[in-house]
Amino acid sequence: MTQLALGVDIGGTNSKFGITDREGNVLAQSRINTQGFTDFPGFVKELKMQVNRLHPMDDVVGIGVGAPNANFYEGTIEYPPNLPWKGVSAFADEVERVFDKKCVITNDANAAALGEMTYGKAKGMRDFVVLTVGTGLGSGIVINGDLVYGKHGFAGELGHTLVNANGRKCACGKVGCLETYVSATGIRRTVYKLLADYTDDSVLRSISYDELSTEAVTEAAAKGDKIAIEAFEYTGRILGMKLSDFVEHTDPEAIFLLGGLSKAGDYIFKPAQENMERYLMPLFLNRKIQLQPSGLKDDDAPILGASSLVWKYLAEEETQ
Amino acid sequence: MTQLALGVDIGGTNSKFGITDREGNVLAQSRINTQGFTDFPGFVKELKMQVNRLHPMDDVVGIGVGAPNANFYEGTIEYPPNLPWKGVSAFADEVERVFDKKCVITNDANAAALGEMTYGKAKGMRDFVVLTVGTGLGSGIVINGDLVYGKHGFAGELGHTLVNANGRKCACGKVGCLETYVSATGIRRTVYKLLADYTDDSVLRSISYDELSTEAVTEAAAKGDKIAIEAFEYTGRILGMKLSDFVEHTDPEAIFLLGGLSKAGDYIFKPAQENMERYLMPLFLNRKIQLQPSGLKDDDAPILGASSLVWKYLAEEETQ
Repeated sequence: MTQLALGVDIGGTNSKFGITDREGNVLAQSRINTQGFTDFPGFVKELKMQVNRLHPMDDVVGIGVGAPNANFYEGTIEYPPNLPWKGVSAFADEVERVFDKKCVITNDANAAALGEMTYGKAKGMRDFVVLTVGTGLGSGIVINGDLVYGKHGFAGELGHTLVNANGRKCACGKVGCLETYVSATGIRRTVYKLLADYTDDSVLRSISYDELSTEAVTEAAAKGDKIAIEAFEYTGRILGMKLSDFVEHTDPEAIFLLGGLSKAGDYIFKPAQENMERYLMPLFLNRKIQLQPSGLKDDDAPILGASSLVWKYLAEEETQ
Repeated sequence: MTQLALGVDIGGTNSKFGITDREGNVLAQSRINTQGFTDFPGFVKELKMQVNRLHPMDDVVGIGVGAPNANFYEGTIEYPPNLPWKGVSAFADEVERVFDKKCVITNDANAAALGEMTYGKAKGMRDFVVLTVGTGLGSGIVINGDLVYGKHGFAGELGHTLVNANGRKCACGKVGCLETYVSATGIRRTVYKLLADYTDDSVLRSISYDELSTEAVTEAAAKGDKIAIEAFEYTGRILGMKLSDFVEHTDPEAIFLLGGLSKAGDYIFKPAQENMERYLMPLFLNRKIQLQPSGLKDDDAPILGASSLVWKYLAEEETQ
């Protein structure tokens, strides 16, 4: 019997879900508008209906869920700033009740790291970090071959390390967090700051704040737009500085970027790599840390990452 | 037969060594002036002579060494800024050759963390950090019950994470490292900066830079000296800010401080705890992270930590 998994990636705007096999093939996938559901049981009910239409569930041995602020230990989603469900949601329990299958849940960036280790460029690596740079900045950290959850299940909040104590307001309630600079929202804020500070002509002056995308900034940079180029330099500089901190902390073999910002290529990777190395202890410099794009396709990565939770769970059950 | 270990802690000024049993008793100890030896083989030869005088070696089953810039994987000490031996020293090999016993070497702060887990307050903890705050600032990180070495053996360089890109020159070659603010040297630099910036009377004005100790600053603070109190506030504020980064990164159960600065009690712990919590995501605040002094005596800690390496090595051999 072919074993399949249902992988679900819950995002602030859309949630993706798909049926995958152990080899990393996504057999079918679809998406739900997350914001359409004011409570999580309503969302899980809709998910069940859509999955039933998508693919037979007979061979599905478990359900993996990646979600912002998910707690692996508790099976909960706790106070997610970008989801419509407030407080603490007992998400895994509800999925198990509705689907009558085992459900494992973790932070979306942890799921991405697991996906990278199972199907991507981190195969065989024991120490690496995945940064998911979308609306916010998430991170999944692997040390000694295992995901780092920490004492309370909240390790890997690299997006909320401090860049500037007097800096930008963050959705988490703090000020000056890394993700207020390095994310789709972050670069948008940077572009608007630069448009305010400088008088240079820029195609970005014709785009409203709400409509300004990372793709638009990348396109402008490719055409030589000074504001766009400087926005990437600034974003990369801050990312590189904080990457040096992360390397001094856990000394990874590689750091992978996933999500919108990583598609900007050299515009973001070059200043990030340069500034990371600039702020590293000399000790690390002859041991090149690889900063590179994820090996997974953006569309598949979250679903594969979430599915990997199921395979990992089964493997651990078998050895016990 | 009682099994004993030789624990050696190599410091920039003095190196301590002692014979310990598995229960954490230090049966005999002594020290050598590290700076008296221009090469490491000369130091190992002297160590052998002094150990022979200190205690019989028959029951000693192994030698554990904690040293700055030590590489666990390679058995080397690499480019230590504060030791007289330059370049890369194959220290473990030399000790094994001269003593004819197994030698395990690691970063001195990693040894301290292992000692804390074996004999101190971290017994039973699986996720914690030990900061050794002496001349510099070292750190040993335990995640999922294991020391974190990283891909290249250099994880845990928290003392060289970045506080200020335009800040103080560090012995490591970088600028603005945490240890240039939070260490015996760091608080001395802060006191001198404050003495320069302000006109307040202070007993610290009568002490030369070279002679200014953390104890003198602590005594002055206890007498209400404004410069001394502000120096601790400033040091604690920077420590607390960076601690929040460390917590967002790996979500530890506790953080232990060991060494000179930790003896200043509330003068350092209060501002550090307050500022750590100030910069933490709200998510962490109802899961109190304990910031507290190490459970080991300062004199014994480095020797016990180094000895723990031997017990850990033996335990791992037995399970293989």
